[in-house]
Amino acid sequence: MIAILRKSASDDAVNHLVSWIEKKGLQTNVSYGENEIVIGLVGDTTKIDPFLLESMDIVERVQRVSEPFKKANRKFHPADTVVDCGHGVKIGGGNFQVIAGPCSVEGKNLLTIARRVKKAGATMLRGGAFKPRTSPYAYQGMGAEGLDLLIEAAGELDMPIVTEVMDPRDVQLFVDRGIDVMQIGARNAQNFSLLKEVGKTTTPVLLKRGMSGTIDELLMAAEYIMSEGNENVILCERGIRTFETRTRNTFDLNAVPVLHYLSHLPVVADPSHATGYTRYVEPMALAACAAGADGLEIEVHDCPEKAWSDGSQALTPDQFDRTMDRIRAIRAVISTGDDQS
Amino acid sequence: MIAILRKSASDDAVNHLVSWIEKKGLQTNVSYGENEIVIGLVGDTTKIDPFLLESMDIVERVQRVSEPFKKANRKFHPADTVVDCGHGVKIGGGNFQVIAGPCSVEGKNLLTIARRVKKAGATMLRGGAFKPRTSPYAYQGMGAEGLDLLIEAAGELDMPIVTEVMDPRDVQLFVDRGIDVMQIGARNAQNFSLLKEVGKTTTPVLLKRGMSGTIDELLMAAEYIMSEGNENVILCERGIRTFETRTRNTFDLNAVPVLHYLSHLPVVADPSHATGYTRYVEPMALAACAAGADGLEIEVHDCPEKAWSDGSQALTPDQFDRTMDRIRAIRAVISTGDDQS
Amino acid sequence: MIAILRKSASDDAVNHLVSWIEKKGLQTNVSYGENEIVIGLVGDTTKIDPFLLESMDIVERVQRVSEPFKKANRKFHPADTVVDCGHGVKIGGGNFQVIAGPCSVEGKNLLTIARRVKKAGATMLRGGAFKPRTSPYAYQGMGAEGLDLLIEAAGELDMPIVTEVMDPRDVQLFVDRGIDVMQIGARNAQNFSLLKEVGKTTTPVLLKRGMSGTIDELLMAAEYIMSEGNENVILCERGIRTFETRTRNTFDLNAVPVLHYLSHLPVVADPSHATGYTRYVEPMALAACAAGADGLEIEVHDCPEKAWSDGSQALTPDQFDRTMDRIRAIRAVISTGDDQS
Amino acid sequence: MIAILRKSASDDAVNHLVSWIEKKGLQTNVSYGENEIVIGLVGDTTKIDPFLLESMDIVERVQRVSEPFKKANRKFHPADTVVDCGHGVKIGGGNFQVIAGPCSVEGKNLLTIARRVKKAGATMLRGGAFKPRTSPYAYQGMGAEGLDLLIEAAGELDMPIVTEVMDPRDVQLFVDRGIDVMQIGARNAQNFSLLKEVGKTTTPVLLKRGMSGTIDELLMAAEYIMSEGNENVILCERGIRTFETRTRNTFDLNAVPVLHYLSHLPVVADPSHATGYTRYVEPMALAACAAGADGLEIEVHDCPEKAWSDGSQALTPDQFDRTMDRIRAIRAVISTGDDQS
Repeated sequence: MIAILRKSASDDAVNHLVSWIEKKGLQTNVSYGENEIVIGLVGDTTKIDPFLLESMDIVERVQRVSEPFKKANRKFHPADTVVDCGHGVKIGGGNFQVIAGPCSVEGKNLLTIARRVKKAGATMLRGGAFKPRTSPYAYQGMGAEGLDLLIEAAGELDMPIVTEVMDPRDVQLFVDRGIDVMQIGARNAQNFSLLKEVGKTTTPVLLKRGMSGTIDELLMAAEYIMSEGNENVILCERGIRTFETRTRNTFDLNAVPVLHYLSHLPVVADPSHATGYTRYVEPMALAACAAGADGLEIEVHDCPEKAWSDGSQALTPDQFDRTMDRIRAIRAVISTGDDQS
Repeated sequence: MIAILRKSASDDAVNHLVSWIEKKGLQTNVSYGENEIVIGLVGDTTKIDPFLLESMDIVERVQRVSEPFKKANRKFHPADTVVDCGHGVKIGGGNFQVIAGPCSVEGKNLLTIARRVKKAGATMLRGGAFKPRTSPYAYQGMGAEGLDLLIEAAGELDMPIVTEVMDPRDVQLFVDRGIDVMQIGARNAQNFSLLKEVGKTTTPVLLKRGMSGTIDELLMAAEYIMSEGNENVILCERGIRTFETRTRNTFDLNAVPVLHYLSHLPVVADPSHATGYTRYVEPMALAACAAGADGLEIEVHDCPEKAWSDGSQALTPDQFDRTMDRIRAIRAVISTGDDQS
Repeated sequence: MIAILRKSASDDAVNHLVSWIEKKGLQTNVSYGENEIVIGLVGDTTKIDPFLLESMDIVERVQRVSEPFKKANRKFHPADTVVDCGHGVKIGGGNFQVIAGPCSVEGKNLLTIARRVKKAGATMLRGGAFKPRTSPYAYQGMGAEGLDLLIEAAGELDMPIVTEVMDPRDVQLFVDRGIDVMQIGARNAQNFSLLKEVGKTTTPVLLKRGMSGTIDELLMAAEYIMSEGNENVILCERGIRTFETRTRNTFDLNAVPVLHYLSHLPVVADPSHATGYTRYVEPMALAACAAGADGLEIEVHDCPEKAWSDGSQALTPDQFDRTMDRIRAIRAVISTGDDQS
Repeated sequence: MIAILRKSASDDAVNHLVSWIEKKGLQTNVSYGENEIVIGLVGDTTKIDPFLLESMDIVERVQRVSEPFKKANRKFHPADTVVDCGHGVKIGGGNFQVIAGPCSVEGKNLLTIARRVKKAGATMLRGGAFKPRTSPYAYQGMGAEGLDLLIEAAGELDMPIVTEVMDPRDVQLFVDRGIDVMQIGARNAQNFSLLKEVGKTTTPVLLKRGMSGTIDELLMAAEYIMSEGNENVILCERGIRTFETRTRNTFDLNAVPVLHYLSHLPVVADPSHATGYTRYVEPMALAACAAGADGLEIEVHDCPEKAWSDGSQALTPDQFDRTMDRIRAIRAVISTGDDQS
């Protein structure tokens, strides 16, 4: 951490600040520039609140040097984390998985869709039982009954399931039912009560980036989960909010290599939510794969026009077949490249 | 709602869509343009998911005409809502209030600060007992003990208190202790479980706009609370996230008159979080007041350098005295203007 | 275009507005909804300024139905445009090209770099002679002398060159020297004087999206050029500005399929500017290729540490060799897929 | 400037970098942290391209400490700049001015509007003769003939005029006609050819912030003008582009106190473009005034429904009368406050 002081700061004021910092157990390094004085803080800077430092009269600005995330940081954990999602399916460290299924669990057609996506090559099944909807008047999901349908499908098809948990009070229910992977949605990316609660379990967590979440905030959210003891975190880029309105979100695929650079956790991308339109899902699924994602999450529905939510972005099973063929071909290129490097 | 179809859509396909819409109880109005066909949907359009409509092959785009919020909508409730916050303090409909106090409740100094802000003219006391922090390693608040300190201060000073609730499991605790106003923070602006839970109480809710929340989403969050029965909602603009980094957030003061135009609910502005720096709090507090806000929420700390959180944006009691003088002067201009109009 | 009127509008006022619109040669279609009245405008809506319409008392909102771009619009020109860049190099309609070279032309090393990128498989040479720099104190480019070095390289290597023009007064110079492709940079994406000036030539134009430019604005900028007579426009996605700071820009790869859907013009992507860091260029080049781009623009420098500008995002020739190998492999997958579709 | 190196950097590599920096005439200050090595660069850091530094293998990140703007920087010029706009009208340093008039000069009604705005208290007249329009098919302004009408109005009313210049080839024309203040629009905020050209004159320049321009970029654009010799620069906040769509732009009023803190140049705000709707212009004009702006630019039209551009955001003369009354009242509060401080 670096504190930039006004050139006009008195020696007394600078010394006072230096001793204040050193009392917190850090070392300092003061350098006098042409237009400002710079104090470098060395040591465990989590002990100092940068905003507090910035509130002092003589301090102009404070800049972080170290990343505030520790457990999610590749610096302290160079090897890729591989998360075991159950049913023999692992993700990360060269293991690439496709999570597919309907936006919402709607009933018996879940099994029909699940069979088709498995046949096409998907290795994990998604489906929402508890749905976060912008409007209180929109369909809110089947709830616990939806979980049962997912469990049934998982059993029949021997595939791990991924489904969203929205309320800390539901976490135990998800654990009790044996949900393989709990998803934290974009709107809950900084719901710290929920993050802590899933952090207390050992169930893998698919953690989506918030709509206005920076890459660092996504990693800090992972840190919340990991600091409670659960290190089975899968990061997910699903589009961020910008000024562009031709797509539902702006797919920040830069985040894929950036997250791989900063963190050891697996990175999944969701081209369905990141585009919002069926016609853009295939090209952006391929793009995410080429960018190096460890997995994709794709919405598939047997009859998108009848879907209870997000039908506009679902692929039909036939479209998904074709997309999977091309994903495999891109993946072959990428994984060969990885071997060479 | 309007559906824009491709010019190339066959008559059969158009008729099929029209009858699908009409089966849902809506009326339609088809017009053939030069480059597209437009279907107007008349009736209760909440019965139709616009994204679903957009998923159909012949549909190019769907545009909303009506706002999706009903209870928060001024169209259906032209008069300003006045929220009674307890201790005789009302907000909205010409009643202007200043909420002041420390970011976090830290101990006995709460009372010292509370006395000073009351003397300066603040009418409500703020202070966080449960703190949402980006880092799991940062100070997380005093919890229930902090609520007790707030209650004690409220009693002594006869002022309503405003404090943040982050977890649906804590809502009953807040109600039991008699908290006057529950605050929903920016990070929980789409935490629908929490919104529903506070919606089941009768305690007034100060609802902050999300960092990437549109004005419509803020109103939909209010709608979540109101649709559960609690109509005592106070909206709060506290800055949104943009590309600008010289301030902590971008204070979207346009939101004040826009919210007044769209909704009957009171609108408060928070210049402390919206700027992030003490030196910008006064001018932006005055600006918010001039824009027509029904109230301001301002952080004040007796010793910002020692604050446990957000010290960089707190005013000292002396700064707050001066700011209150000027707020009163601006408010006098604005309320006179309102009478004239 | 659709005008949404207040429910409270009097019949007289509605009739008045209808006749005002019809006097402009358009037809109208009025429908009465539950909470508003909607007028559909049919005909050449470019004759009506939507903002003007919105200024009228009874009008609540105006929404466009047709896109405002005509010449760039795929609706009126379904087949892909193929732009001939000279030296036998075509782009668009299945023709994929890689444009590579240094950010700035710096001297004789241009030829060294050009030979290496050609050998690696690049088919067009880039290099800036006139440089737009945020600071007036930063290096501003070699100017006309740089153009000469580019022409010399183009001649020796028989490759078309792409170089940026910043000033309408320089356009004739670029034409006189025989520059193959003129680039319009992101900062000039709405410099209408410059757009019109290049529109009066027949030289192909590589048009970059502005930092805060929507996809529609990019197409409207193309429209400026095309409406002056020059239809040889190549669109370029180079990253937009968002709140994310871990990369120089946010690479909006969704724009690639969206532009292909809306327009017939070729679409190029620039992973160098879109990421800002050498280490992210290869994965994002592959992603852009997988998303269906018709070409890539990549910065290559023989000694990035000595580059006069943007060294941080340049590949070395060795890195570029490897990247080209993988681009070819991805392109093979994508073009096969295209044949099947 | 600070370079953060990887902890793994060898001593040789660090020494090599240090001597490279020192050869450029700067001093260095190396400190070894727990997780990284930090080099502080002291001296004229404009000699070093931060992106170049960042391209080096051992460098993780580079952070600026000093602002890159010099002439616009309050640090080197503590007193407020007062710009003389002609006709005895000065702005900045306590001098507050209101610039009003139509968006576009349309003909003889300019004089009618000008008389009304002067009577209401406006001290400068605005009107566009050359109009930047997103669509090439929209009205592009009267051109030189419009300038003549402005000159005529300025003469009759003895008010300085403000009008936009879009093309470096037109700057001499503006100077020859004696235009009092040349406006640079948001779309040309980084049109460096144009900035340099107006920098060579002595005519005051009203410089608008770009739609995606940071506060620092606005100051760098001012620096372009000032570095050519013209120090008569007035900064203008006119709204930035964000995700919010209920207003035309997001009015970043934080920029007013931030610009005053960072720079000595006068700061004007434009509530007409920043909101886009007549109904929000008055509250936001008052807010800008309360935030401490040195002036306001407001669109007024005698018949907004007939305006050739931007009618939706213009005030009528009657509305402007009322707004001016309230601006004066707010200004009285603010300027009293300034005296006290």
